Amino acid sequence: MFAVPVITFLTDLGNKDYYVPLMKGQILAAQPNANIIDISHAVEPFHIAEAAFILKGCYKAFPQGTVHIITVDSEQELQPACIMVRAAAQYFICHDNGFISLVLDETEIEEVINLPFFAEDLVFPGSRIFIPAALAVLEGKKMQTLGTPANFLRKGNLLPVIEESIIRASVVYIDNFGNAVTNLHQSDFERYGAGRKFRIYISRQEYFQEICKYYGEVPEGEKVCLFASDGFLEIAINKGNGSGLLGIKIGKTVLVEFL
Amino acid sequence: MFAVPVITFLTDLGNKDYYVPLMKGQILAAQPNANIIDISHAVEPFHIAEAAFILKGCYKAFPQGTVHIITVDSEQELQPACIMVRAAAQYFICHDNGFISLVLDETEIEEVINLPFFAEDLVFPGSRIFIPAALAVLEGKKMQTLGTPANFLRKGNLLPVIEESIIRASVVYIDNFGNAVTNLHQSDFERYGAGRKFRIYISRQEYFQEICKYYGEVPEGEKVCLFASDGFLEIAINKGNGSGLLGIKIGKTVLVEFL
Amino acid sequence: MFAVPVITFLTDLGNKDYYVPLMKGQILAAQPNANIIDISHAVEPFHIAEAAFILKGCYKAFPQGTVHIITVDSEQELQPACIMVRAAAQYFICHDNGFISLVLDETEIEEVINLPFFAEDLVFPGSRIFIPAALAVLEGKKMQTLGTPANFLRKGNLLPVIEESIIRASVVYIDNFGNAVTNLHQSDFERYGAGRKFRIYISRQEYFQEICKYYGEVPEGEKVCLFASDGFLEIAINKGNGSGLLGIKIGKTVLVEFL
Repeated sequence: MFAVPVITFLTDLGNKDYYVPLMKGQILAAQPNANIIDISHAVEPFHIAEAAFILKGCYKAFPQGTVHIITVDSEQELQPACIMVRAAAQYFICHDNGFISLVLDETEIEEVINLPFFAEDLVFPGSRIFIPAALAVLEGKKMQTLGTPANFLRKGNLLPVIEESIIRASVVYIDNFGNAVTNLHQSDFERYGAGRKFRIYISRQEYFQEICKYYGEVPEGEKVCLFASDGFLEIAINKGNGSGLLGIKIGKTVLVEFL
Repeated sequence: MFAVPVITFLTDLGNKDYYVPLMKGQILAAQPNANIIDISHAVEPFHIAEAAFILKGCYKAFPQGTVHIITVDSEQELQPACIMVRAAAQYFICHDNGFISLVLDETEIEEVINLPFFAEDLVFPGSRIFIPAALAVLEGKKMQTLGTPANFLRKGNLLPVIEESIIRASVVYIDNFGNAVTNLHQSDFERYGAGRKFRIYISRQEYFQEICKYYGEVPEGEKVCLFASDGFLEIAINKGNGSGLLGIKIGKTVLVEFL
Repeated sequence: MFAVPVITFLTDLGNKDYYVPLMKGQILAAQPNANIIDISHAVEPFHIAEAAFILKGCYKAFPQGTVHIITVDSEQELQPACIMVRAAAQYFICHDNGFISLVLDETEIEEVINLPFFAEDLVFPGSRIFIPAALAVLEGKKMQTLGTPANFLRKGNLLPVIEESIIRASVVYIDNFGNAVTNLHQSDFERYGAGRKFRIYISRQEYFQEICKYYGEVPEGEKVCLFASDGFLEIAINKGNGSGLLGIKIGKTVLVEFL
């Protein structure tokens, strides 16, 4: 079997316009057997934190050599720059707006280059800058021939505030079911909790004393908290819209008290 | 040409989150040339009847050996179980919640196994249970090595009530155009009608005396009924939103009177 | 490497129903390694001008031999006819409703045939007429064996009205970001403007005196006009929803005055 190139798209371009199929056509014109996967095109425009959350949750599943194309740019006016990052034996092509620092751990990053472009390419960077770079990599070109070694912009992920007996976590994402995902990872919970009893407050009156393994451990319509597939604490309602019914929005504090 | 594995997804996971691309990445990591097809991710959460209607309408078109992954679970609290079904020389991996009985005829079913799992896999059954099973099948493993022979839960599709001169059908699906699809199949209509004249009532005053072959047989904006591509009676408005304009919702009775 | 067939879909069928996956299944049953690309399924029902705008913006990127399947039909009652068009070494299968004349230049068109069908196929032309024709082409059949040479219906694209010192352009599309795309192409602007100074009015009081190369040339939240990737004049707000904030709808006149 010959190697099949795998390319993914993560954009805020929606599912209607010609922008995404144009880029796919460019890929297929050069690599007709490429396996193109849509991560998501439903990212809120310019919301790089949301895009980062989505990619962070799934990139590790993809095979070595996968090229991820991420066209989501931030709202802030920055010196426009485009980068290609090699990490975990995969390639990430994106704007240098801090996005990549929200997805990857520093230790995973193997190589970073700045992609050259002309000002007029910025009218459609995905098509004019990112796809040609992706195709060059797929043709076996070395990264160092495609741009100059570069640093990249760091942005801090919103981290939980951890004190002696309290962790202040935040809701950072709400999924299609209305499950509210926080920024508190199971590993932090276990390290700081050290086996102590706990209460997880979602309001002054409402708290959990138990973390479930899966939604169905509580009856239908009951609230439940668990560590989701990616290891982050999630507040949900079994077979219901947790964030909607519990009034939880992105940014809400979830307070963990160890007893 | 080597065989290309075909895998489909039918979920209520939406088009934004990382859950679906994570599963696709898992497949491509093992089978980079897999041809992955999205049946739909827009099923209403936990609506297995809707999911079943969609898959029933299209699975027969897919090639032998296709693996269908269906992650829609029912709202009812059941003993959680996951099954793999071989039918029509294809594979269906889903929750054992009655879904499969709404899609397949008993006579089509060739083999059913229960898929083993740990309780914690239920946090994301698609990724933890269904995909590994799908990959095992694609690698040529026999079903009997992947689980224990099993029965599966039956649910009754809502069937038309058929009397001497009357058939009480129900609207079971409304499509993207607003066409209202009923549960009355052409074969039943013809067997019980036996060539008699008929009236198809959608309200006390409104009825059809004729079934068209295609929408365009009536003028634009006129109501029309026909047997759709899958053989079921459909109420529509030519180039219009039939269910919206005629006030038809899922569950509505459509009454056929033979004269 | 063997040739991989590339097939695209452009429909108003939405992302939920079984119609699109049914057609994809039909393709894969015959051509399991086909690379199937969704151009868009979010075209407004029966809106052939919108569908044409989308395909016009991207078809040239696709490789030679690509087969485009377009199931969008017009609202007008026409003598139903289905055509296959070869142009730019690609194939376009669609209703003969004027759509193709909105996408392709006359000079690009190499061959046109009428596809034969039975009246009952019109219940689902995509599945019954278009896919069999697409598969025949992919199997190497000559177009002349699949139907009779035919003409096709022309529809005029809404063109800008060009006078001595004034061009009356129209907004013809609004994209996912709210950018308003007009029908004024850069080539016409430059030919008629001939280097003169200009004002581009979007209301009596609001005008542009400059055309930017990319959105980021103006501060975030400021309005900007530029020639988009496909060469057409676009009114936007940098990092904002231009059409929404500026009250621009499809059909709005954008007036260019040369000074």
